[in-house]
Amino acid sequence: MRVTPRLRNAISHQSPLVASAALKERVRRPTMLSKLALAEDLAPMFKDDDYIGWSGFTGVGYPKTIPTAIANHIESNNLQDDPSTKKKFNLFVGASVGPEVEDRWAKLDMIARRYPHQVGKEIAKGINAGRIEFADKHLSMFPQDLTYGYYNLHKKHGDPRKPLDWAIVEATAITEDGWIVPGASVGATPEILQCAEKIIIEVNTHIPNLEGLHDINQSFVPPNRQPYLITRPQDRIGRTAIPIDPDRVVAVVESVQPDNTGQNAPETQESRDIATHLIHFLSSEVTAGRLPPSLLPLQSGIGNVANSIIGGLADGPFERVRVWTEVLQDTFIRFFDSGKLEFATATSIRFSPEGFDHFYKNWETYKDRLLLRSQQVANSPEIIRRLGVIAMNTPLEVDIYAHANSTNALGSRMLNGLGGSADFLRNAKLSIMHTPSVRPTKSDPTGISCIVPFASHIDQTEHDLDVIVTEQGLADLRGLSPRERAPLIIQKCAHPDYKDSLMEYYERSLVECLKRGAGHEPHMLRNAFKFHTNLMEHGTMKIKKWD
Amino acid sequence: MRVTPRLRNAISHQSPLVASAALKERVRRPTMLSKLALAEDLAPMFKDDDYIGWSGFTGVGYPKTIPTAIANHIESNNLQDDPSTKKKFNLFVGASVGPEVEDRWAKLDMIARRYPHQVGKEIAKGINAGRIEFADKHLSMFPQDLTYGYYNLHKKHGDPRKPLDWAIVEATAITEDGWIVPGASVGATPEILQCAEKIIIEVNTHIPNLEGLHDINQSFVPPNRQPYLITRPQDRIGRTAIPIDPDRVVAVVESVQPDNTGQNAPETQESRDIATHLIHFLSSEVTAGRLPPSLLPLQSGIGNVANSIIGGLADGPFERVRVWTEVLQDTFIRFFDSGKLEFATATSIRFSPEGFDHFYKNWETYKDRLLLRSQQVANSPEIIRRLGVIAMNTPLEVDIYAHANSTNALGSRMLNGLGGSADFLRNAKLSIMHTPSVRPTKSDPTGISCIVPFASHIDQTEHDLDVIVTEQGLADLRGLSPRERAPLIIQKCAHPDYKDSLMEYYERSLVECLKRGAGHEPHMLRNAFKFHTNLMEHGTMKIKKWD
Repeated sequence: MRVTPRLRNAISHQSPLVASAALKERVRRPTMLSKLALAEDLAPMFKDDDYIGWSGFTGVGYPKTIPTAIANHIESNNLQDDPSTKKKFNLFVGASVGPEVEDRWAKLDMIARRYPHQVGKEIAKGINAGRIEFADKHLSMFPQDLTYGYYNLHKKHGDPRKPLDWAIVEATAITEDGWIVPGASVGATPEILQCAEKIIIEVNTHIPNLEGLHDINQSFVPPNRQPYLITRPQDRIGRTAIPIDPDRVVAVVESVQPDNTGQNAPETQESRDIATHLIHFLSSEVTAGRLPPSLLPLQSGIGNVANSIIGGLADGPFERVRVWTEVLQDTFIRFFDSGKLEFATATSIRFSPEGFDHFYKNWETYKDRLLLRSQQVANSPEIIRRLGVIAMNTPLEVDIYAHANSTNALGSRMLNGLGGSADFLRNAKLSIMHTPSVRPTKSDPTGISCIVPFASHIDQTEHDLDVIVTEQGLADLRGLSPRERAPLIIQKCAHPDYKDSLMEYYERSLVECLKRGAGHEPHMLRNAFKFHTNLMEHGTMKIKKWD
Repeated sequence: MRVTPRLRNAISHQSPLVASAALKERVRRPTMLSKLALAEDLAPMFKDDDYIGWSGFTGVGYPKTIPTAIANHIESNNLQDDPSTKKKFNLFVGASVGPEVEDRWAKLDMIARRYPHQVGKEIAKGINAGRIEFADKHLSMFPQDLTYGYYNLHKKHGDPRKPLDWAIVEATAITEDGWIVPGASVGATPEILQCAEKIIIEVNTHIPNLEGLHDINQSFVPPNRQPYLITRPQDRIGRTAIPIDPDRVVAVVESVQPDNTGQNAPETQESRDIATHLIHFLSSEVTAGRLPPSLLPLQSGIGNVANSIIGGLADGPFERVRVWTEVLQDTFIRFFDSGKLEFATATSIRFSPEGFDHFYKNWETYKDRLLLRSQQVANSPEIIRRLGVIAMNTPLEVDIYAHANSTNALGSRMLNGLGGSADFLRNAKLSIMHTPSVRPTKSDPTGISCIVPFASHIDQTEHDLDVIVTEQGLADLRGLSPRERAPLIIQKCAHPDYKDSLMEYYERSLVECLKRGAGHEPHMLRNAFKFHTNLMEHGTMKIKKWD
């Protein structure tokens, strides 16, 4: 390690760096300012095989300056060209971070291991090429498994009691106590800070000080864990900043980089049709007395269908709606502004740059109607079940019995990871999956059916889903047996190009299985993945015939 | 309906029947005794397509007299021979009940629909032959979905606001308030009573009055649900009896039938080997500081492996152990008697007849170390996660990436149902599945491998399991990626007869998937179920070669 004079100063806490006025305003604990350092001076401190946790969730609130400086250091010194200097890190972040850092690290082959969620072309490539070990995990469980020591079972150096060597976290302020006020996400930051031997804080002075936006509770492990005393989305159970041990803070860095969020996925006719089916269904549940007129707290995923649903609700019949979700997208601004959204809580706000501009400018309007919590709380089965959340998420594919694939294309190629889908779908009062009925391939505009005989990877089981909806229609599966579900899903949700083929699969499976006294959930296992193998071989799921 | 004079008396509450001394002692609300009736007089009241809920869980605490009388009535009048007199009922019970009632109903083709779990040759036959609609559901969710009205969406007659036409429940006493003291299980009885238009109570005077054994809390629905304020297995949050509306009680019947439980599954060398691996693993977790010396609350399933584990713990190194589980089997008596089990709570006690004899005779010894709760509480994700339960369950098969099949043989033939396995495995601090590595077929003593390339039905996902153990060894999967898990599961857990074949599947899948940039969870979908199709065709999973 090259120890420059500035670095020596930085780590000996005698910083000659002068803090900017903006930074002084944000850092209210003077001893923290004495740890001021430059990112490029810190970059060489990170060793091969280090366990590093970052703040960040859905590309918001992640450290930007130091990861970039580490990548610059490695690239400019050509460290990756030689096995003796090469560095690969084990990277733990609540969910995804901005592609300019995560993807760059992946491209430089700097990531040995990455848990539990990611978004980015290069990182997905590294995972699927076998260069990056990745495991997706329920986002509510990742932080607790980190504190349990489950991710450092095979850690080879450093303090064995600390799951992480480093935490690098973004803050929008540091309090008098040295506590950290996060940016527009909380994610796993509290547990990452709790688990790390050394802490580096990037204070982002470009983003406003978001103090008051967060509800941070203390995270216990069994047998000392306590109930979350939350019975409404607006209930506060914690403080507005994350407590840390100031002695573990190695350095403080000023950052002025905005979150690199990009645009939200645009709505389409298809996504609007799905939203229409869904809002009609929710209305009929209110009429039947199974939901209150203001609904129950909503969870919605990311993507254009989620945008259409929330947009539809902004124009919809429900008043005083509350939201208990993982992430808020731009359409929530419209939902707030419509007057129909009373309160929303999540672990992250993933607005577009324009969305954030609007949000920060009108901060006074929103600040009392919004709370961000840690992902262990936001995605907690305890609270989701208690509140009776209405959960809505998009799968890659759903099978005729309502098992769903949220993660692996053709069973093997990881897209982004499980995220919080199963936290919500397992515990919601209404578990809804929405998807277009088909997707295009290069050669066939309806080459992929999202309704398949057998999901090629299963993340959500038949025991977890109540409703499947596509632009074709909505299948209400509550209280139905597998033999009742299959024809309903096919008739209501499948694309016309696949209806006959799926019905033939079901009917032939039924005959064959009843014949051998095995007809509870009829399948022809020899044909179960024929849609998928046909896609691999012929570029379409349209098969010639069942074997 | 044939209205006999006795029945008219019964339903007009002017019973000429004289209550036995035993019954008078048990029924402390006099107006209940005025509803005394004979089961055979009530039998004709049940109409075709009625929605009926029973008490009972794992063959304990179910009504015996009235279901038997209904079957007798139908059989002796040959009602099932003629479509105009045929009766089929929709039957809802927390879990399984004694085969002498459930199986007999199935044999007489009296069951149209049965949710959410069952045990019995005839009922499984009816389900797999397409005569009985069955859906298994997380046992924690079944009672809430019942109260939500999800099971009566297609109910054709009766009060549409009431999910059930009838509740038939066993009690060991009725309190002054008319509240029901259950037998040796609680299950879904509180919610079944809450949901039923008419209630019939079988007071069982053969079983002791178990007042004080139960902790019954009120069941709310969102948005009014409250936290379960339980932080230790011994915490009480409710009362000792189930509140009901006495006006809905149509009749009270005396019953003297014992629970028909049969023997527990005997231990084998294999089950003892599995238990040894597991206890060794738990010891090493204590040594590493990841578990306290008295462990964390244990959950164990049913069967010989569970018996061996609990037996092993009775002789094991852990003191002051506590249990938070679904069902207690005979070996728990030994565990209690060893002095090492401090407290146990469950929703059902499924002892053998001899076990029950011993238990009831020594009631004073056990009564302060034991609580029974409703299955909504016993299996609650909220409490399981808070307590950090160590969950141990048996699958039918596990695949090389740690997806498990708990329910459907060869993907289609229902055995018993999901039960509470996923409630526990999703939320436990340590999620463990134990299984023999192989099972015999008619022609091959190792014809079925319990480790397969792709589970033919998936109830537990890779995101839910921490440890897989067979008599061959134990695979600790915590923190590992799919590519790390597969070789470990194969090497540690698979039977020698299948190791090479499984490794070849994994390695060939890896090569093929890496080649097309899809190597996160390598599979050859065309071969994924080849073990299973080979079993169907040739009576063994030993394949000649991979295609």
